[in-house]
Amino acid sequence: MAMTRQWRLASRPVGEPTRDNFDLVSVDRPEPGPNEVLVRTLYQSVDPYMRGRMRDAESYAEPWDVGEPMRAGVVGEVIASNAAAFSAGDIVTGDLLWAEHAVADASELRHVNPEHGPISTALGVLGMPGVTAYFGLLDVAEPTPGDTVVVSAAAGAVGSVAGQLAQLNGARVVGTAGSEAKVEWLTDDLGFDAAINYNATDDLSSAVDDACLDGIDVYFDNVGGPITDAVWPRLNVRARVAVCGQIALYNETDVPTGPRKLGKLIESRARVEGFLVSDYEGRWGEALHRLSRFIRDGDLEYRENVVEGFENAPDAFLGLFKGENIGKQLVKVAEYEQ
Amino acid sequence: MAMTRQWRLASRPVGEPTRDNFDLVSVDRPEPGPNEVLVRTLYQSVDPYMRGRMRDAESYAEPWDVGEPMRAGVVGEVIASNAAAFSAGDIVTGDLLWAEHAVADASELRHVNPEHGPISTALGVLGMPGVTAYFGLLDVAEPTPGDTVVVSAAAGAVGSVAGQLAQLNGARVVGTAGSEAKVEWLTDDLGFDAAINYNATDDLSSAVDDACLDGIDVYFDNVGGPITDAVWPRLNVRARVAVCGQIALYNETDVPTGPRKLGKLIESRARVEGFLVSDYEGRWGEALHRLSRFIRDGDLEYRENVVEGFENAPDAFLGLFKGENIGKQLVKVAEYEQ
Repeated sequence: MAMTRQWRLASRPVGEPTRDNFDLVSVDRPEPGPNEVLVRTLYQSVDPYMRGRMRDAESYAEPWDVGEPMRAGVVGEVIASNAAAFSAGDIVTGDLLWAEHAVADASELRHVNPEHGPISTALGVLGMPGVTAYFGLLDVAEPTPGDTVVVSAAAGAVGSVAGQLAQLNGARVVGTAGSEAKVEWLTDDLGFDAAINYNATDDLSSAVDDACLDGIDVYFDNVGGPITDAVWPRLNVRARVAVCGQIALYNETDVPTGPRKLGKLIESRARVEGFLVSDYEGRWGEALHRLSRFIRDGDLEYRENVVEGFENAPDAFLGLFKGENIGKQLVKVAEYEQ
Repeated sequence: MAMTRQWRLASRPVGEPTRDNFDLVSVDRPEPGPNEVLVRTLYQSVDPYMRGRMRDAESYAEPWDVGEPMRAGVVGEVIASNAAAFSAGDIVTGDLLWAEHAVADASELRHVNPEHGPISTALGVLGMPGVTAYFGLLDVAEPTPGDTVVVSAAAGAVGSVAGQLAQLNGARVVGTAGSEAKVEWLTDDLGFDAAINYNATDDLSSAVDDACLDGIDVYFDNVGGPITDAVWPRLNVRARVAVCGQIALYNETDVPTGPRKLGKLIESRARVEGFLVSDYEGRWGEALHRLSRFIRDGDLEYRENVVEGFENAPDAFLGLFKGENIGKQLVKVAEYEQ
């Protein structure tokens, strides 16, 4: 029988995950049942939110079980189909497994049209991260022309889209990121008004001050922790904070503490709101339509950081917490031959 | 020349204010200029927000100057008037001074109709605290029938109104307060579904759990600090937090720290918003109209805690931080003779 490989959760991490928390196993390649499709993975996504699923704690996403395969956004090719909507050779995307092959119900898959651009974008700018940025920025943060918008992890898959969407809405955009290469991408290529390398300053607070002389109207937060502490005192009256992620805190073993933040909200009458892209399921098409158009018009750029080889998927994931990626972090699992 | 007395800010407090921060001085009774009114204070308000004005820091309210008289909400009687809209004997309210007599421009005063109820209520349930509760609860927190609403400092001037308005909107209401007498008032008289005496438990977290078995949909926060920490983990999906005050933190000398709170907002997609009643200036009449009606219909109860004598105004203020007051804290400065 044909085999395939899966990455399984070997153990729950304490603090920062390590390769020991992952287990590569060979299993029989699954057969699709009624209305099911067998997909060969071409690209697999790794995302910060996955850290939450490694934890044995109640959250918006079910925790992964130890000893079981983990789940991931995948772009792949249909190998076999028992569903009318999909045929062998189709390119599809869905939440499948960290696996070289996986079976999915037809309802869990979407078609990807290779003529619309690189298929890998279905996991990045035209996938979950792009759609997250779209709704978080436009629906939650609501920037208006002239606003100063700060985006943390601005060179990441979500932040880079959020920042550019803010620019398209007429805002002045300031990004934070962890390397000079990222800062250069933001300012030189994407045209951000300013970018702060938080690893190159020992006074983040002054750096934020200098970059935001008129205060901050919108903060799109992917990071939390000290960067958010530096942003907070500069929030303007009626500022909006869209809380997308808190990657700086995901590996903490104790309850993270920091300056109390609610008092500032009274003075500024600011609004802070968390959001999940899954709440926008019904409007996914709207976001993809507009994001595609921005890309076609040259108004939205993206980068991908591709790790080659399924066996390196855990390293790609671990790199997220080291700030290794510029743009969307992907694992290339198999060659796509058109 | 006739004299009057004023309380002035003697020095800025470090930590909890003391009587030494206040200075009682006798000055010439002021004369009203054109379009001005001389008011004899009958009741003076003391409010937690005043602690912020004692501080030399940028905030939504100008800091008071050392050596100058402090400001307060006052209900008083017009002694002399150079303004067409006011005559001697009228009862008025406005933001005047901590003083037995003060002059105000006619534009700073509102008439109080003694036939509508005790004139002191213009500083409480039918004044700034009541209007604060009204807009904070209805406009910011937006409870819906069946919601569990938690109000901190629920036996205070703002909290007691916010909690009752939540009940009128069909919510299940849980209050926190610092004494058994307050808890009894909330549950036995006001009919709150539950009330927690935070001074009588060493496990606030479990107390909140037990009182909010279905989680928390709305948190109306007057207090901040450990009470807010206990509430936070129970916020439901789409919960709303209206940040009205943070009295637990006002006397801190260092930046207060506590558990980081933004991560929870992602999972719960909760919204946290600060507000100031001054932003609702144009809708003050709407709030007073509805609050008066609720009182008349027996749907809204209130209590006042009255300290007698202008010389005791600082003690009344200091008592706010010791949790001495049930309901609105007032200073009775002179007898009202109808």
